[in-house]
Amino acid sequence: MSSILSSLKSPAELRAMSLDSLKELAGEIRARIIEVVGRNGGHLASNLGVVELTIALHYVFDFLHDRLLWDVGHQAYVHKLLTGRNERFDQLRKAGGPSGFPSIEESPYDLFNVGHAGTAIATAVGMARGLSRQQSDARVVALVGDASIVNGVAFEGLNQAGLLRRQLLVILNDNSMGIAPTQGGFAEYLAKFRVSPMYEDIKRKSQRVLSQVPLIGKAAVDALAHLKEGIKSAVSPHQIFEQLGFIYIGPTDGHDLEHLIELLRLVRDTQHPVLLHVHTEKGRGADFAVAEPCKFHSPSPFKVEGCRVEIQSGGRSFTAAFADALIDVARNDPRVLALTAAMPDGTGLNKFQTVFPDRYLDGGIAESGTVDMAAGMCKTGLRPVCAIYSTFLQRAFDQVFQEVALQGLPVIFCMDRAGLVGSDGPVHHGFLDVAYLRGMPRMVLLAPADEPEIGAALRLALKLDVPSAIRYPRDKVPEPILAPGESAVPEFILGRSRLLRDGDDATILAYGALCRNALDAAELLGADGFEVRVVNARFAKPIDPDMVIAALQGGRPVVTVEDHSLAGGFGSAVLETAQELGLPTTRLVRLGLPVDRFIPHGSRAGQLAECGLDAAGIADAVRRGLSREDSPSESSRIPLRTAAARPMSGVRTA
Amino acid sequence: MSSILSSLKSPAELRAMSLDSLKELAGEIRARIIEVVGRNGGHLASNLGVVELTIALHYVFDFLHDRLLWDVGHQAYVHKLLTGRNERFDQLRKAGGPSGFPSIEESPYDLFNVGHAGTAIATAVGMARGLSRQQSDARVVALVGDASIVNGVAFEGLNQAGLLRRQLLVILNDNSMGIAPTQGGFAEYLAKFRVSPMYEDIKRKSQRVLSQVPLIGKAAVDALAHLKEGIKSAVSPHQIFEQLGFIYIGPTDGHDLEHLIELLRLVRDTQHPVLLHVHTEKGRGADFAVAEPCKFHSPSPFKVEGCRVEIQSGGRSFTAAFADALIDVARNDPRVLALTAAMPDGTGLNKFQTVFPDRYLDGGIAESGTVDMAAGMCKTGLRPVCAIYSTFLQRAFDQVFQEVALQGLPVIFCMDRAGLVGSDGPVHHGFLDVAYLRGMPRMVLLAPADEPEIGAALRLALKLDVPSAIRYPRDKVPEPILAPGESAVPEFILGRSRLLRDGDDATILAYGALCRNALDAAELLGADGFEVRVVNARFAKPIDPDMVIAALQGGRPVVTVEDHSLAGGFGSAVLETAQELGLPTTRLVRLGLPVDRFIPHGSRAGQLAECGLDAAGIADAVRRGLSREDSPSESSRIPLRTAAARPMSGVRTA
Repeated sequence: MSSILSSLKSPAELRAMSLDSLKELAGEIRARIIEVVGRNGGHLASNLGVVELTIALHYVFDFLHDRLLWDVGHQAYVHKLLTGRNERFDQLRKAGGPSGFPSIEESPYDLFNVGHAGTAIATAVGMARGLSRQQSDARVVALVGDASIVNGVAFEGLNQAGLLRRQLLVILNDNSMGIAPTQGGFAEYLAKFRVSPMYEDIKRKSQRVLSQVPLIGKAAVDALAHLKEGIKSAVSPHQIFEQLGFIYIGPTDGHDLEHLIELLRLVRDTQHPVLLHVHTEKGRGADFAVAEPCKFHSPSPFKVEGCRVEIQSGGRSFTAAFADALIDVARNDPRVLALTAAMPDGTGLNKFQTVFPDRYLDGGIAESGTVDMAAGMCKTGLRPVCAIYSTFLQRAFDQVFQEVALQGLPVIFCMDRAGLVGSDGPVHHGFLDVAYLRGMPRMVLLAPADEPEIGAALRLALKLDVPSAIRYPRDKVPEPILAPGESAVPEFILGRSRLLRDGDDATILAYGALCRNALDAAELLGADGFEVRVVNARFAKPIDPDMVIAALQGGRPVVTVEDHSLAGGFGSAVLETAQELGLPTTRLVRLGLPVDRFIPHGSRAGQLAECGLDAAGIADAVRRGLSREDSPSESSRIPLRTAAARPMSGVRTA
Repeated sequence: MSSILSSLKSPAELRAMSLDSLKELAGEIRARIIEVVGRNGGHLASNLGVVELTIALHYVFDFLHDRLLWDVGHQAYVHKLLTGRNERFDQLRKAGGPSGFPSIEESPYDLFNVGHAGTAIATAVGMARGLSRQQSDARVVALVGDASIVNGVAFEGLNQAGLLRRQLLVILNDNSMGIAPTQGGFAEYLAKFRVSPMYEDIKRKSQRVLSQVPLIGKAAVDALAHLKEGIKSAVSPHQIFEQLGFIYIGPTDGHDLEHLIELLRLVRDTQHPVLLHVHTEKGRGADFAVAEPCKFHSPSPFKVEGCRVEIQSGGRSFTAAFADALIDVARNDPRVLALTAAMPDGTGLNKFQTVFPDRYLDGGIAESGTVDMAAGMCKTGLRPVCAIYSTFLQRAFDQVFQEVALQGLPVIFCMDRAGLVGSDGPVHHGFLDVAYLRGMPRMVLLAPADEPEIGAALRLALKLDVPSAIRYPRDKVPEPILAPGESAVPEFILGRSRLLRDGDDATILAYGALCRNALDAAELLGADGFEVRVVNARFAKPIDPDMVIAALQGGRPVVTVEDHSLAGGFGSAVLETAQELGLPTTRLVRLGLPVDRFIPHGSRAGQLAECGLDAAGIADAVRRGLSREDSPSESSRIPLRTAAARPMSGVRTA
């Protein structure tokens, strides 16, 4: 029973609590998180690591007035528990329940719905500048991780922050882990000081300073400078941050609640950018999470029984299938290597790494740099495969354009988490990749429908002399699909679709994993006496023109299906091709994600159903098409639909 | 007469030349660049600044074997002159002539066609890794500017480079200028050392070291370390780079040819990442370019007569019109402020800065950080306007998605250089913005057709409570357009198009500046007896459904016109709307940029004509539509066009 936590009505109440009560609260919070994540899944170890830090922050600051920005969005569970979402926390990541990331829709304590990392400092600088311009003394705090601070956008933020002559606190939460062990020279630099002997020094010295120094103004700045000078002789990581313009404090123990509160009070009103370097232990408070923090970063629902932990597996994923397929092609082609941007487990490349350790590269939370490295390696004749989630590849969009597409370099992008992602919600849906890649000349876009097609897609991509991008969802692979007459899955041929099921009443053109739903829809329609053709498009670029002609020239209903936005995606590509070929399109309907709203977090199955992309939804769309009158002149007299006449939902004009 | 330059057949010949001859060559190169840029336009001051450096690089390295990567693509004129493009240099930036950026199509000495800055280090790391894996000892050199090294992608590259145990040379060309004065804490840090007293020290010390030290292997590394130790006492900027894992050398005089050659020889074979910090003077060798380097960064053709310089102006640009329109709205709304990412002159914000210096912010070559700062400021209630070229906004794509669109923050993006950009070519065409922005829920996309519409678009954008993006080209504004019956340009209404010219024979739906070409096309068609309706769409999102219905339901030809890719752009949005409304689309034709090739550099007018977007091309498209038989059943029997049946041009399967 969580007595302190459940009776906490506002973070302001923390200030009336004793240190012992705060520590008890920390224990309750840990238990609550372990319990709920154990049922619902979510991000475990990183949240356990910031319990004391989050409590201390809410103790010292009033974040209804002050501003708290999360760089690592999935670390905000403790924050949510303290700010009114404890009661609903059992519904974490479930439809209608709290999101797994900060959510402006839920609470005024949440300012930006973020999940991509690296952006909090620059955003905080913007807020600080905006507040200054409006003569507000509200304090701004950005909580950043050691792995995300090496992201390029974070560096741009640091570069700007150093110019401020105002309060701005950047807390560097250093657990040396990020998602996987932190990468790069900067990480090595930070790592040197994790076991710094001056750890205890800072505690003593800051206490001495605290007792002597007023908390605002020049004196505080000077006192802090003094503190810094005093520890300069020891090996200290302050240089880079100081040279960028920060006052640097630390490193300090991020689990020492009392000390954290002291330090935060010390720096709270300093009118100068301050970087507070804090060491925490990822997974603190749950032995299994500490022992294997990578595995428990974002566990599917698991059970904890004493020391025994059981992860409930969910069948064979596209991720696992991709991992094996890549290992397979790499065996046959020594030029192949694999790159990730800090996501070896999520992309399945952890397995590749064990088989081909010297053909694996982790660029860290730096998608742009990773893509450019891949381009450079490709230029030397190698065949790099970049495994980056669809939504994270957005960070490298211009590098895909300039270093890859513009040069025509045959880098292969494998985008996991394409489409609706379930409980991670809008900040992670990969719903734009077809639209943002399609306009790049010499870019081939493919999507496998099942496990055998992943390997086939990779094999084709390797034959190309241009870049390509392969997409697949966070989901289980279906049973391998074979069309009547096929003894094996045919190889991919550039720009050629694949007929899965024939029929004359209507056609479903499906792109990617939703082929399975399309086939299921055809079964449902078959039971109603309709014979529906199902085509696996295989390519969103180039579109197979024969596929489009065959579908449309008979005047029968056609439905396109994609796990992607309806703006500029696969269905739009089909439509464009139809228009270019002069084919009628009045029988064409496109299914996909809406263009005017974000699909909230929940189960992926629920989200697909919401968008009409489940078998029932697809079948319904076909039925509607079949029931419509088959007369072009009639359709042109269709009155203006009210929905279309309204401007975008959710947009108001002042 | 350029005798040395014109007889130079290969950079290898440099090694046989005396120092005096090399200096003479440098002078000839400067004169050649000034002469050609004076006629053709292009980037002047930055190229003048790297004459000695480029000569020294080609003297010491053999870049057919070794690899040279340019971070600042427009600084490669000297390089081009030395590598076989002197003869054709008079055609610089002209159709068919050398590009203003490195070009793999022109020469094996050019590796990446780049123009966006910040990417060379990460790409170089990739090449270095790829070469190592293939046991090649080819050396890799990346030439980076002080302004671009603060870009986030550059930082990601530095972070990765520090891990290499192989040769990699990063040359930091520091002129403290970038495009405009370099921004940020890092710049201030670098600036401290520009007048370092140890400037002369390094020269003396390196000479001493050079005379003692073998040029490869551990001894060289140690010698360099020694050098570094020796100058540690002086104020020196080595720390950040060393802490990232580099051996740091410098700063040194980038115009001292002899010394540069010495230093490059010293570090050429060091099997460790080295950062060579070089000071140069932007515009060196042309007084007017030194005095006003910002003005002469990229001048339109100008005339040089002794000391008198005349810039040939080209009429009132969209840029200038935007600048005044923004000043106007800012006068009326104190919440408005303007941000640029290192492009105050190119965006016109230099003028805004003089009027509202405290409402102007330059984030440096850091589009991501700049957009995030804008988001942060917007969150505090301000109304930031981000003026970032369409192609450069690609760098901030994910920040536009996450910090802006996902939060529904009403940041306003003003994208200059939208569409075909003329002589800067494919690395700068802004041909993807509609496609990459359209799928973001709550994003409004607008395009003004002339000067009055810029202000009107801004005024609407300010009324919105969601983000918006306004696009306009690098071109002259047309005469203000008024439709019959209009006494003034009507205000923008969300999702409402504007009829410019009426007619019953066909309809042209134009988005943005090409409205002028559409009207001119209508005039041409009028002379042939056709009355063509011209609609200014004003919005690519949300599309005006009435506009689409009116155009298509009569069964008359419709042509959409956009300065943008045909994949997922304005025309596709019209097509999608038509399909959603059940309207026939067989009479619809879309004009825009091709999806399977890049449009080469040349004149913007020529490029528009090549894409059929000039008045004649648009009129032809309408004529073709008028001459086609008006029977849907006929059109559905149109045989498979050979072009559509072919996979993408330029893509081969091995």
